Amino acid sequence: MGGFSFEKLGQDGKARTGVIHTPKGDIRTPAFMPVGTAATVKAMMPESVAATGAEILLGNTYHLMLRPTAERINNLGGLHKFMNWSKPILTDSGGFQVMSLAGLRKLTEEGVTFQSHIDGSKHHLTPERSMEIQRLLGSDIVMCFDECPALPADRDRIAESMRLSMRWAQRSRDAFGDRLGYALFGIQQGGLEQDFREESAEALKSIGFDGYAIGGLAVGEGQDAMFGCLDFAPDQLPEDKPRYLMGVGKPDDIVGAVKRGVDMMDCVLPSRSGRTGQVFTRRGVINIKNARHADDPRPLDEHCTCPACRNYSRAYLHHVFRSNEMIAGMLLTWHNLHYFQEIMQGMRDAIAAGTFDAWEADFHAMRAQGDIDPI
Amino acid sequence: MGGFSFEKLGQDGKARTGVIHTPKGDIRTPAFMPVGTAATVKAMMPESVAATGAEILLGNTYHLMLRPTAERINNLGGLHKFMNWSKPILTDSGGFQVMSLAGLRKLTEEGVTFQSHIDGSKHHLTPERSMEIQRLLGSDIVMCFDECPALPADRDRIAESMRLSMRWAQRSRDAFGDRLGYALFGIQQGGLEQDFREESAEALKSIGFDGYAIGGLAVGEGQDAMFGCLDFAPDQLPEDKPRYLMGVGKPDDIVGAVKRGVDMMDCVLPSRSGRTGQVFTRRGVINIKNARHADDPRPLDEHCTCPACRNYSRAYLHHVFRSNEMIAGMLLTWHNLHYFQEIMQGMRDAIAAGTFDAWEADFHAMRAQGDIDPI
Ligand SMILES: [Zn+2]
Ligand SMILES: [Zn+2]
Repeated sequence: MGGFSFEKLGQDGKARTGVIHTPKGDIRTPAFMPVGTAATVKAMMPESVAATGAEILLGNTYHLMLRPTAERINNLGGLHKFMNWSKPILTDSGGFQVMSLAGLRKLTEEGVTFQSHIDGSKHHLTPERSMEIQRLLGSDIVMCFDECPALPADRDRIAESMRLSMRWAQRSRDAFGDRLGYALFGIQQGGLEQDFREESAEALKSIGFDGYAIGGLAVGEGQDAMFGCLDFAPDQLPEDKPRYLMGVGKPDDIVGAVKRGVDMMDCVLPSRSGRTGQVFTRRGVINIKNARHADDPRPLDEHCTCPACRNYSRAYLHHVFRSNEMIAGMLLTWHNLHYFQEIMQGMRDAIAAGTFDAWEADFHAMRAQGDIDPI
Repeated sequence: MGGFSFEKLGQDGKARTGVIHTPKGDIRTPAFMPVGTAATVKAMMPESVAATGAEILLGNTYHLMLRPTAERINNLGGLHKFMNWSKPILTDSGGFQVMSLAGLRKLTEEGVTFQSHIDGSKHHLTPERSMEIQRLLGSDIVMCFDECPALPADRDRIAESMRLSMRWAQRSRDAFGDRLGYALFGIQQGGLEQDFREESAEALKSIGFDGYAIGGLAVGEGQDAMFGCLDFAPDQLPEDKPRYLMGVGKPDDIVGAVKRGVDMMDCVLPSRSGRTGQVFTRRGVINIKNARHADDPRPLDEHCTCPACRNYSRAYLHHVFRSNEMIAGMLLTWHNLHYFQEIMQGMRDAIAAGTFDAWEADFHAMRAQGDIDPI
């Protein structure tokens, strides 16, 4: 079994393309990771997720520790076998989701005590326990246990939270130990404050990680503020390691992040939107619920090669969505995931060819056209 | 384009095997038809339905006439294209489901007036309109418009209803006309009464149809009563045409019906049960919700070649079912449909080999064992 490494293959401006080598397979970057919260990417078979071009999934520690539990998954041979996904898996640390529980959790230096949203049972999560859970799951890329405030927040709260996360990063590193073929990523915090981001980056680099995430963004600050932060945050992180922007985002967020030097992203948006009838296309967002699609024999996107576009009309997708049929979520999720992966492939090719600016201009020009006219 | 024909290839006792030839492909009999109520077999991609071995689907006139409407489907190129299913489709006449609306419908000699369960709008269905709708849908096998009482019912009600259905059968035949490559099936009625069933069969034969359905069973009479009726009803129908038992059923119902000379069946059971966690296996029914499966690394059925059994443990299926994940319904439906098709293939082979009795004894012996012991 080989190790874990990042190979940068090209750069255009700040945008980078490369490959993350792992024992479970290569991940071409920039990479988009579909979210498989509860050991499934909702509405998708894992082989269909792979068919969209996904080379890595994200799993949620918080959800899996509660149900079916990390110990159970470990006894069953680990998350890959459990959910029938043999390529790499990145797991979050549980921190972000526990923090979102608001009233149901209590934070100390040691860690967080919280109540399950499923049955109200009490749980304790620390850096050490998070490392143990992610090891039991068999995660290939393990995330440090951290904490972050919703934005806006005052500077004191942001600094205090960031410094706690850096102490937890050291404890995560110590607890993770040395595991050949597995990676531990640190998470930069510091809100939108350049000085705190710098302080956080320095703390992480002195600990040393296999990759570096940018945490605490996409938490309500808006795209301008996020891009403002991404104008400096990636540069503060090591050049020779993957940079992962957590929980992002919409197609234009993703493109803007890659342009600023981000290599990896994850988001529930393409799968969640698939189930609510929101369709992402090269020409912007379509709401399939809309009556204008009821008689439309055309596909969502005539250039898309996903099964939803190859085999079905907008009229069909409208019909099954309005009829609450599961195939609506299945097809729309497939299309959305396919489209997101197509964006990533487009960016990888453009960066390698040194034509990222032209690609980006075309991306925005296509979107500005809006959807095709009604029939 | 060729015509529609039935070729009997073998018989063992009363059980028959053969092929229904249609321009859209052959249907090997005995055949089980999955139900695609609203232009989708719930939780399944059509290519997955075909992968289970299904060679024909059933579509519901009642549902499709209300949403998205037959005219709309016709404008979009017909039901096959609309739902991406190129093999044969049989549509019911809408009669059975309209009759089930009870308070919401009004029956006359002319037809039925009823209110939509979706939006309360008023609709009128007659033999002529049912034929028109099924033609607009592009149905390969069209069913006569009929009516039937729930059982038990008194003999007068059964006779009256059956005779109305026979008048409607003549009107259906007249309205259907002559359509090369498309078939019209008559529907025998008469409850459990041998004399009425005989009268109905004679009426249908004198009109002349491409196939003959046995209607008005599986409506609450129980398996013994149904088998009692099937001991004579199929024999009353032409030997050289397919015989279709509507709305049946559980695996043992299906086997008992084939043994009595039935060639085709349809039922929502495998798909509906898949979504409620009921799993049909060679060793009986499994409820995947049951806590005994939570840690079980074994597949539903180690001999089954469906994706649910090849790629997932009972523990996984239990987990995703309890977590209300769509993949639970997707995988369990796939398994159930696969298993139903496996029964059909087993019966076809056994009838051709003249070993139906041995196959049936084995079928019941396996079921009698019950599920594998908990781990
Ligand atoms: Zn598509
Ligand atoms: Zn199976």
